[in-house]
Amino acid sequence: MVTDKLPKAVIYKNGILSFLDQTQLPLKVVYEEQKTAEQIYDSIKRLKVRGAPAIGIAGAYGLIVSVKKYIHEPVDIFLTELKRIGEYLVSSRPTAVNLSWAVNRIINKAKSACYSTSEELWHILEQEAENIYNEDKEICKNIGRYGAELIENGSGILTHCNAGALAVSELGTALAPIYTALDMGKTFKVYADETRPLLQGARLTSYELQASGADVTLICDNMAAYAMSRGLINMVIVGCDRVAANGDTANKIGTMNVAILANYFKIPFYVACPSSTFDNMTLTGSDIVIEQRNPEEVTHFAGVQTAPDNVKVLNPAFDVTPNELITGFITEYGIIIPPYIINLENILHKGWKQNLMFK
Amino acid sequence: MVTDKLPKAVIYKNGILSFLDQTQLPLKVVYEEQKTAEQIYDSIKRLKVRGAPAIGIAGAYGLIVSVKKYIHEPVDIFLTELKRIGEYLVSSRPTAVNLSWAVNRIINKAKSACYSTSEELWHILEQEAENIYNEDKEICKNIGRYGAELIENGSGILTHCNAGALAVSELGTALAPIYTALDMGKTFKVYADETRPLLQGARLTSYELQASGADVTLICDNMAAYAMSRGLINMVIVGCDRVAANGDTANKIGTMNVAILANYFKIPFYVACPSSTFDNMTLTGSDIVIEQRNPEEVTHFAGVQTAPDNVKVLNPAFDVTPNELITGFITEYGIIIPPYIINLENILHKGWKQNLMFK
Repeated sequence: MVTDKLPKAVIYKNGILSFLDQTQLPLKVVYEEQKTAEQIYDSIKRLKVRGAPAIGIAGAYGLIVSVKKYIHEPVDIFLTELKRIGEYLVSSRPTAVNLSWAVNRIINKAKSACYSTSEELWHILEQEAENIYNEDKEICKNIGRYGAELIENGSGILTHCNAGALAVSELGTALAPIYTALDMGKTFKVYADETRPLLQGARLTSYELQASGADVTLICDNMAAYAMSRGLINMVIVGCDRVAANGDTANKIGTMNVAILANYFKIPFYVACPSSTFDNMTLTGSDIVIEQRNPEEVTHFAGVQTAPDNVKVLNPAFDVTPNELITGFITEYGIIIPPYIINLENILHKGWKQNLMFK
Repeated sequence: MVTDKLPKAVIYKNGILSFLDQTQLPLKVVYEEQKTAEQIYDSIKRLKVRGAPAIGIAGAYGLIVSVKKYIHEPVDIFLTELKRIGEYLVSSRPTAVNLSWAVNRIINKAKSACYSTSEELWHILEQEAENIYNEDKEICKNIGRYGAELIENGSGILTHCNAGALAVSELGTALAPIYTALDMGKTFKVYADETRPLLQGARLTSYELQASGADVTLICDNMAAYAMSRGLINMVIVGCDRVAANGDTANKIGTMNVAILANYFKIPFYVACPSSTFDNMTLTGSDIVIEQRNPEEVTHFAGVQTAPDNVKVLNPAFDVTPNELITGFITEYGIIIPPYIINLENILHKGWKQNLMFK
């Protein structure tokens, strides 16, 4: 199984929590045991663990591990510490929606649970953290299953940034179809965009694809058109941060470039993401505010300055790919195809399990 | 004048030759006097001087400076040394067409010149090197003059790689219209792609644009679609290595990406180049062989390893932009517009100065 070869971002086993330190990848593979709330806060803040689902999982397990020392205290003290430490962990990355979602899910579980001691409650919450992990794993597995059907033997697949095992519980979103197809015995090549400025494609995606045994080739972002023009790419799969109600999709900067190139070369462009990524409250992509990140990410790399002092810089965190460029969304319920304005409205109103608009 | 503020790649004045060491840019501006053939060979090989026309100019002046010590020798010895050192300098970058062209032009001048002493001959050859410089300067000036007409007040211009003052005698090719428009008092913004893997845009283009006083903003290559989608870009100007007879254009890797994006957003895409870049012997872009460069350029960034050991890499030196994506070629004779198959055939057969097919 490919899953046995893949790195895991977060491991919780026999009460011990470890994070793979992704800041040291790909040169060093270091799992660090996480013992205190301060250490977990620091690990999340320093991006040792990253990727929306993985941060949520890290936060949930992190809260469990951090409050374990209070299990012999009275319940009211335990609950006070649970809330205090939960808020503290959320503040490590205040804009990470999955982190606050997962931490709050643990805290809310404590409110609704039936128990008589702090220790009993702790075990219920530990199970809730396991549930968060396992639900994410199941979603990734299903995305993989639907997406793998699209992969043809002998094809070339391009991906951008890292929406792989390192960003989730297991398998990934954009990379789940690839790993599943590998398990099915399909043969194909994968091309990974290096993904400037933070090089997640070079550092993380090519690392985990290599670990999985996939045939992976790393390219600079500006080589995608070359690769497509040479017939090396038959399909693009990327992850995403948010999908608007009309299908416009926010994802790592550079995703829209790839989508436009794929459109020019008539190559299918798929977005793989869980149903939770679809945001009914955001009508179109133009309603999504694009944050600008630190200019030094562009003017420096690994501490080395590569541009003149004081040069002006654009450094948008992500871009918004117009719906017209997206061939389909690979979700845990199936593949959603255009017209998105109709199909997404149906799904978001009638519910995902109606399964009406899937391919 | 903008030219007074621009860096010069090669300076020859009062018999003294200096190169701006471009490997130290943008952090240090160091002009190195070039005294011997060995030093000049080394400077060209190590890319202290780069850019096709600049390498030719460096080779011509370099040959003059290197043979000066033989001016009191008999003519036959002078000629033998001229040929020997010329061949030696050409071997510093054997695939640089402009280098062998310029060195051979000096050697051929020696064959056709009228003189009685080695010293007399040397002065004739020094003048020939000056001619090479001045002809390039005149070409750039005219490209600037024609191209500047296309630049509108308040617009945003995107460029890729470095086809600026640092690559030629003065002004540049892609950047000549920008500098000329600045001199005309036009106001506009320039966006420079950083241009992975070697970052000529970050290191060189943003440096010389900043020196010129232009309003320059540096972006990663994968941010071009974002910038275009936000209405920041109204025009693209790039240089090129070679234009096929049908208008297909080889230039630095990533140029085709920009051309496809510009096409999607209906933004004019111009190629600025001297008439000598049009290659009548290459029928279409598919006849151009694309060399692959050292994988380490992709797996490392500014000397730091950023990808796993032994990962496979694509590293094409350039790509070929299809003619259909090019709005016009800005040459020293005027702007060539589509249909290229007809207009370029007319120009290449009837001669540039007929001026029939220009805008």
